Amino acid sequence: LKETRLLFVGFGTVGQGCAKHLVSTKEYLKMKYGFKFRVVGIVDTVKGSILNDNGVDLSRALSVVGKGKKLEGSEFRGKKGLPPIDAIKTSDADTLIEATWTNLKDAEPGTSHIIAALKSRIDVATSNKGPLALNFTKLTRLAKSKKRHLKYESTVMSGTPIFNLKDHCLRGARINKIRGILNGTTNFILTEMVNGKDYHSVLKDAQARGYAEVDPTGDVEARDPAAKITILSNAMLNADISYDEVQKEGITKITLNDIQQAVCESKRIKLLAEAYRNQDGKYSVSVKPTLLPENDLLAHVDGVMNAVQFSMNVQPDVTIVGPGAGGDSAGFGLLSDVLSIHEANRLEKVKSA
Amino acid sequence: LKETRLLFVGFGTVGQGCAKHLVSTKEYLKMKYGFKFRVVGIVDTVKGSILNDNGVDLSRALSVVGKGKKLEGSEFRGKKGLPPIDAIKTSDADTLIEATWTNLKDAEPGTSHIIAALKSRIDVATSNKGPLALNFTKLTRLAKSKKRHLKYESTVMSGTPIFNLKDHCLRGARINKIRGILNGTTNFILTEMVNGKDYHSVLKDAQARGYAEVDPTGDVEARDPAAKITILSNAMLNADISYDEVQKEGITKITLNDIQQAVCESKRIKLLAEAYRNQDGKYSVSVKPTLLPENDLLAHVDGVMNAVQFSMNVQPDVTIVGPGAGGDSAGFGLLSDVLSIHEANRLEKVKSA
Repeated sequence: LKETRLLFVGFGTVGQGCAKHLVSTKEYLKMKYGFKFRVVGIVDTVKGSILNDNGVDLSRALSVVGKGKKLEGSEFRGKKGLPPIDAIKTSDADTLIEATWTNLKDAEPGTSHIIAALKSRIDVATSNKGPLALNFTKLTRLAKSKKRHLKYESTVMSGTPIFNLKDHCLRGARINKIRGILNGTTNFILTEMVNGKDYHSVLKDAQARGYAEVDPTGDVEARDPAAKITILSNAMLNADISYDEVQKEGITKITLNDIQQAVCESKRIKLLAEAYRNQDGKYSVSVKPTLLPENDLLAHVDGVMNAVQFSMNVQPDVTIVGPGAGGDSAGFGLLSDVLSIHEANRLEKVKSA
Repeated sequence: LKETRLLFVGFGTVGQGCAKHLVSTKEYLKMKYGFKFRVVGIVDTVKGSILNDNGVDLSRALSVVGKGKKLEGSEFRGKKGLPPIDAIKTSDADTLIEATWTNLKDAEPGTSHIIAALKSRIDVATSNKGPLALNFTKLTRLAKSKKRHLKYESTVMSGTPIFNLKDHCLRGARINKIRGILNGTTNFILTEMVNGKDYHSVLKDAQARGYAEVDPTGDVEARDPAAKITILSNAMLNADISYDEVQKEGITKITLNDIQQAVCESKRIKLLAEAYRNQDGKYSVSVKPTLLPENDLLAHVDGVMNAVQFSMNVQPDVTIVGPGAGGDSAGFGLLSDVLSIHEANRLEKVKSA
């Protein structure tokens, strides 16, 4: 069995989450799926950069980074200090695990990492929403033209299966409509407001718990869920829409009074993402606060949990509910992608054989 | 591309549901997954039996059966009137689509159909709960020893992905606990009782809508969900438990008063199926009416919808909610199995190549 050579670019909470799963399931993955791996590099703008085609010890890397030290110390042998793009081009990797931060302004540096990898005929698993939300068609076309895989399970609902669910479990079904609760921070805030707390005190609480960023505008102004519904629309409905076209409305104007009024009417206000094809063939894609009746399951997806509901031609709606954030979960999504890529490559060998 | 030769045994609502999906997605499945098929036989104790290695026209069969006619008329060429076991042994099939009725007393005739197919080196996709609930270990071992596939997506939650979700989307994760609402009839009854209707009038309503059988004991005495949690425990937790070991309690003793009392306490009574491994290594598997607090998502899975929740080592709980019954949905589950088998067979060619 040939080893898959993995290169990490971005080794924060999510990259480390994936690394932990790889370490803890190594023997199982070999036995069960014939998946063997070697890490040929870890590159992070803060934690340093180490490249070694003979293998970088992943457990040691986790331990060193866990102690707050850099990856460029004497514990490691190999090429040190290379910036990401050079590392991608130089390394002997089969699969890039791209877990750098999301940037919805220009989708960098993630987009450049992905392009460099695909052009070097390296498969890509990414948790970075920016490149997929802003450059979906460009990147998926590039992957196709290079006959490489680009997987992005953890960009939406973290490690909760969405794209793999569609690809592997809903074969033969046509998805007509997607509805979802795609942002944990705002869902946490709206849930706490139902319990009588006002917006600003809940936001502070969410920041203290680490659910919300110090600058929470990306969440509360709906940019994060808008990025996710853009990716879903393109991947599941072939909508070919851009992030800018998504109708966005955040939760900053929702008052405690609005929330309580809804509860009195046996309803809930949720930041609902929706995408469907109109009669005229155009796509309607939006994220906005929406009143949901109590008999709508999405009204009961509370706290930091997220959900996606698929309406299909073959059967009534299917809804999947799970964590929408967290290093362990997003890291698991990356692992799922790496394993899917492994399997797809094996399948392609059949075709070419 | 080699055609997959399909044999239907059992051509009621579920078998026909699968047939409809095959007809309507034929070109798509060929293009997208390289899946080509030919139906080499349809066998049903009521609708008749037709076998033809050169192909049975599936659209015509659906139309004939839809008119209430038998499959043995002059519209069809081939061997007619063969009973199921003879048909399985005689036919040139690659994959058996077994969609006969569930029998939880001795799991026949489904078990014999599956055994006959596996022994003839035919892969099996079945929607029949009986064989899997009563003979899980025996049948899965037989499949393994014959190097054939036995798939059963639609035995639990119909076409909502459960087993495929685990196999394809949760790779590398260890499932520690399963909770679920696995029976649509009882969930419909309990939901309607929350709205103030008494048990007997709701049951009549459910029977009128076709949600409940004329003899509803299999549902209301929890045998159907017990069969399903048996299959889930064996497939997902490797519990190797038998259907008889499942602790079963139905909903026949639940009064309107119980329901209303629960609502007053902001709770819901649900017929909850649960399975987990105890500290002592033994498995606890049960189906019983359970009080769920309002912040439990399963408390809000209402009407005929079903749900399964997975607790895993790699991330917080993931819950999937969807239809638990219906010919279209169960037929879609069978189609998913047929496509999974097709893909697995292609993968195995790599290994052997």
